[in-house]
Amino acid sequence: MDYQQILENIYQEILPYAKEGKQADYIPELAKVNPDQFGMCIHTIYGETASIEQADTRFSIQSISKVFALAMCLSIKGDELWKRVGKEPSGTAFNSLIQLEVEKGVPRNPFINAGALVMTDILLSHLENPEEDFLNFVRAVSNNQTINYNRNVATSERENGYLNAAIVNLLKYHGSIKNDIEDVLHFYFLMCSIEMSCRELSLAFLAFANHRRKFDYEGIRLTSSQVKRMNAIMQTCGFYDEAGEFAYLVGLPGKSGVGGGIVAIHPLLYSVAVWSPRLNSKGNSVMGIKALELLTTETKESIF
Amino acid sequence: MDYQQILENIYQEILPYAKEGKQADYIPELAKVNPDQFGMCIHTIYGETASIEQADTRFSIQSISKVFALAMCLSIKGDELWKRVGKEPSGTAFNSLIQLEVEKGVPRNPFINAGALVMTDILLSHLENPEEDFLNFVRAVSNNQTINYNRNVATSERENGYLNAAIVNLLKYHGSIKNDIEDVLHFYFLMCSIEMSCRELSLAFLAFANHRRKFDYEGIRLTSSQVKRMNAIMQTCGFYDEAGEFAYLVGLPGKSGVGGGIVAIHPLLYSVAVWSPRLNSKGNSVMGIKALELLTTETKESIF
Amino acid sequence: MDYQQILENIYQEILPYAKEGKQADYIPELAKVNPDQFGMCIHTIYGETASIEQADTRFSIQSISKVFALAMCLSIKGDELWKRVGKEPSGTAFNSLIQLEVEKGVPRNPFINAGALVMTDILLSHLENPEEDFLNFVRAVSNNQTINYNRNVATSERENGYLNAAIVNLLKYHGSIKNDIEDVLHFYFLMCSIEMSCRELSLAFLAFANHRRKFDYEGIRLTSSQVKRMNAIMQTCGFYDEAGEFAYLVGLPGKSGVGGGIVAIHPLLYSVAVWSPRLNSKGNSVMGIKALELLTTETKESIF
Amino acid sequence: MDYQQILENIYQEILPYAKEGKQADYIPELAKVNPDQFGMCIHTIYGETASIEQADTRFSIQSISKVFALAMCLSIKGDELWKRVGKEPSGTAFNSLIQLEVEKGVPRNPFINAGALVMTDILLSHLENPEEDFLNFVRAVSNNQTINYNRNVATSERENGYLNAAIVNLLKYHGSIKNDIEDVLHFYFLMCSIEMSCRELSLAFLAFANHRRKFDYEGIRLTSSQVKRMNAIMQTCGFYDEAGEFAYLVGLPGKSGVGGGIVAIHPLLYSVAVWSPRLNSKGNSVMGIKALELLTTETKESIF
Repeated sequence: MDYQQILENIYQEILPYAKEGKQADYIPELAKVNPDQFGMCIHTIYGETASIEQADTRFSIQSISKVFALAMCLSIKGDELWKRVGKEPSGTAFNSLIQLEVEKGVPRNPFINAGALVMTDILLSHLENPEEDFLNFVRAVSNNQTINYNRNVATSERENGYLNAAIVNLLKYHGSIKNDIEDVLHFYFLMCSIEMSCRELSLAFLAFANHRRKFDYEGIRLTSSQVKRMNAIMQTCGFYDEAGEFAYLVGLPGKSGVGGGIVAIHPLLYSVAVWSPRLNSKGNSVMGIKALELLTTETKESIF
Repeated sequence: MDYQQILENIYQEILPYAKEGKQADYIPELAKVNPDQFGMCIHTIYGETASIEQADTRFSIQSISKVFALAMCLSIKGDELWKRVGKEPSGTAFNSLIQLEVEKGVPRNPFINAGALVMTDILLSHLENPEEDFLNFVRAVSNNQTINYNRNVATSERENGYLNAAIVNLLKYHGSIKNDIEDVLHFYFLMCSIEMSCRELSLAFLAFANHRRKFDYEGIRLTSSQVKRMNAIMQTCGFYDEAGEFAYLVGLPGKSGVGGGIVAIHPLLYSVAVWSPRLNSKGNSVMGIKALELLTTETKESIF
Repeated sequence: MDYQQILENIYQEILPYAKEGKQADYIPELAKVNPDQFGMCIHTIYGETASIEQADTRFSIQSISKVFALAMCLSIKGDELWKRVGKEPSGTAFNSLIQLEVEKGVPRNPFINAGALVMTDILLSHLENPEEDFLNFVRAVSNNQTINYNRNVATSERENGYLNAAIVNLLKYHGSIKNDIEDVLHFYFLMCSIEMSCRELSLAFLAFANHRRKFDYEGIRLTSSQVKRMNAIMQTCGFYDEAGEFAYLVGLPGKSGVGGGIVAIHPLLYSVAVWSPRLNSKGNSVMGIKALELLTTETKESIF
Repeated sequence: MDYQQILENIYQEILPYAKEGKQADYIPELAKVNPDQFGMCIHTIYGETASIEQADTRFSIQSISKVFALAMCLSIKGDELWKRVGKEPSGTAFNSLIQLEVEKGVPRNPFINAGALVMTDILLSHLENPEEDFLNFVRAVSNNQTINYNRNVATSERENGYLNAAIVNLLKYHGSIKNDIEDVLHFYFLMCSIEMSCRELSLAFLAFANHRRKFDYEGIRLTSSQVKRMNAIMQTCGFYDEAGEFAYLVGLPGKSGVGGGIVAIHPLLYSVAVWSPRLNSKGNSVMGIKALELLTTETKESIF
């Protein structure tokens, strides 16, 4: 399949959506990004690659970092992890704190903020040097030593992070957080602040696409079955309140971030990353979702 | 792959779970079924088949009928359908009526009862002879003219169906139901009362597994893309509050029923049906889920 | 105190609000009422009375009938009643069905619809001729044999009563209703359909204002303490989601109805009824609430 | 009326309840209090007084301080206050954070924690020396310069105050808090830490019981109408999820605290304070509520 041609066709088709949506502006650092950018990159498990436009521009991966955190937690805790966090889709965004109240501090899944905060707490408890160890893992799985945190973004997020502070306090009230609240929030926002390009993200996620390859990076090891199960969670929980819509339109497991990035995988075939800062009302990149829908339509290759 | 051998191995492995769980007993007709039964049948798209134990015993398919209803609605209304029902997972069971209140009468997805009641309303409005037409479609897709409703079960369900009556009245209050409430409830319970065996269900669902085959039964036509999208909905919404768990453990799209049946498909590979009346606390067959988990483990063939 | 003068002053002051709000129009019978009407009548326990405008025009008392139902239930069941219905304010209107789900079929208080439906069920179980007995009680406490149901209104309500039908089905599902659902709905709407004038309502509620007088009407007996406790419930639960606002502005126990009537009492002093069909967004009469606020301001006699 | 005799009779009657309930122990300072204590004191507006047992032992007034905060806020902001906080009862305890989410950061009433935190924010914005000014007001209204904060209790509360921290962060997220979060929490817990005896509380609340007396303490002025309205709020919102029950059993406006204190008033008649550390499941003093129920029964003087 000529992926380069397919990506170029897709780009032509999504151009009409270039001005739709609104970039995240709840912190100054994200509001500064030029919203009129788009990048896309694909890597197959056979070593092919294709990319278009700003595929090499780095952006804030934000919630995509939760996939890396889940890989570490699953490697460290195994199925014990599921005692502290569920794996069910979260229903409406509206429910975030309600569900925590009703479910007594056990977040629905690892990709809602509450779940990611519990994972952050686990990493703080189990890693010797959490900040270094997390970054080293991401660099290893990406095979790229230049990837880094953006501490300005992290600081800016913390300063405005009242909702996450509310969630972590509620979790602490329910006994679901072992570490100091400020430490958890600091590390959480730091992980979210990692910056990567579409090319880098796509390459990193090959590790999840190809579950026949050994997953072992800086001591973080997952079995083939564990990698497949992570993909299952990306499928059912990767897009907040739009997980069903994304499965319906695109049919691939994936994860989005409020910086406008989306990464998706077709198991045993390819991984793909797309980025454009303008978001729809659910917080997912408008052009990004459209591009992925077209990709599976043109290649006729959803997992269903 | 020797599916017959795999199924026999699975049966040995799940025997220890034979007494776990409790069959549905909210209506006398379901309570009468001998709970200590188990059947399983698989059909590949290449014409292979394998089965074990009571694979030919018919049981009440209950909510599995919602997949047939969705196929009809999608064929009749196309994407217009999604104006009346969503396609997002439903969060906790606890939320059923709450979500209807909050979301003003638009059910989260077609597989929760509220969504199925809206589909029932659509079928009543668009089919000339709803009861006959629905049955004829199921018979056609199953290639089996002996399949039928069990009117005793349907009547018994209606007599005790206060929760569904509450839901349909709330939907009517929000203007989401066009037909008479009693007509909707009657037809809804009738569709749920259809009886099929594992062999029959498995064969019928080949139509969803093989989306390259033309889908056209009694005038109900779906494109390849529509079939894939139905599979996506089975993946994210097919198991109530256990959709995430099922995706994690089994990794296949499917649908369960309170009668103890589960049907699942591996796109472009096979469809499989399993039945055992004892249910876990989420309303899904204990042995059924265990058997499907082992199937994807032994064949190493989840979709992820 | 010259109540006649006070009422006339009040009328002048509330005239500017005469066109504010919107009458109930969810059933044709209520929509037919001329919205530009106003009546008010007061009776003191010393035998004084005063009235203005359409104080003798009858209107649909609707939810005010729940006070009569509570008096009967309390007389019949005593404190056993509180096992089937609570006595706490209901929080937001938004919560109606949610609270029933969370609290497993025990309504928050007797004045929300769910609570009144449970009281209706109790009356059906305990009265020999429920329709006659209820009417006879209302006639006796009002000392007026001409008071009657309006069966057209009741029928019209039932035909459109989907929300109440949803609630009663949910209650039945939780085991909170013993009688047939249709019988409960029929009798519930019938009680709501009683028609009385401000003069008649005001006179009837003297029985609650003067708890030193013996309460014994057609065999319905309440102790002084029970009457006081009914007043407490009117105070905390009589105005749906506006109970706090009413206590704050008016400071009297009372009960409103969607027909535009409000009745309030000042224990050991007076009872007062006011009526005007235009309602505010919470379903309470705009001019009615304003008139009662002025009454307690001008007489300087709230209970606080 | 011989109040001394009445109090002594009450004490004999409530002795059987002396071991019921459990004192608050969520912070060490409260757990240290001997739970087997009881005190009660009444002051009439005519200068009579009566007291029994530990009526002069000081205890942590906790949420009773919210009444003082409301008096200050109402004096400072007038009816503008109600733009930032509602005055409706709060429904179930279960709803605390849910209601904030649904109602976008406007707390239901000033006596739930969220409402009190908003009042704290208002006081921080408007008082020159918030800590001194608040204490001076409480001392003035109590006519007692020895009343003071217990800073150990306040510190201990802050250290364990995750739920309140969650609430204030959620409020801040919704824009409902202007000041620094830590400042709000610090001052909030400090106000709650004030220690007073039954005799002192009872005397202080005469200012609310006797709304014909001028209310002017350290520049905090309320009209007679404002005092009455504060009483209305105590009636409908003073006992969390037990406001209806308290109105039903006792029939007086009042406010309880988790330290085991309850203060209530009979407008234009008396104020009464009672204290005993053992609480029922709703967080109100077991012996305290029982004593007040008997008081209104024996004096036949509920406000209804």
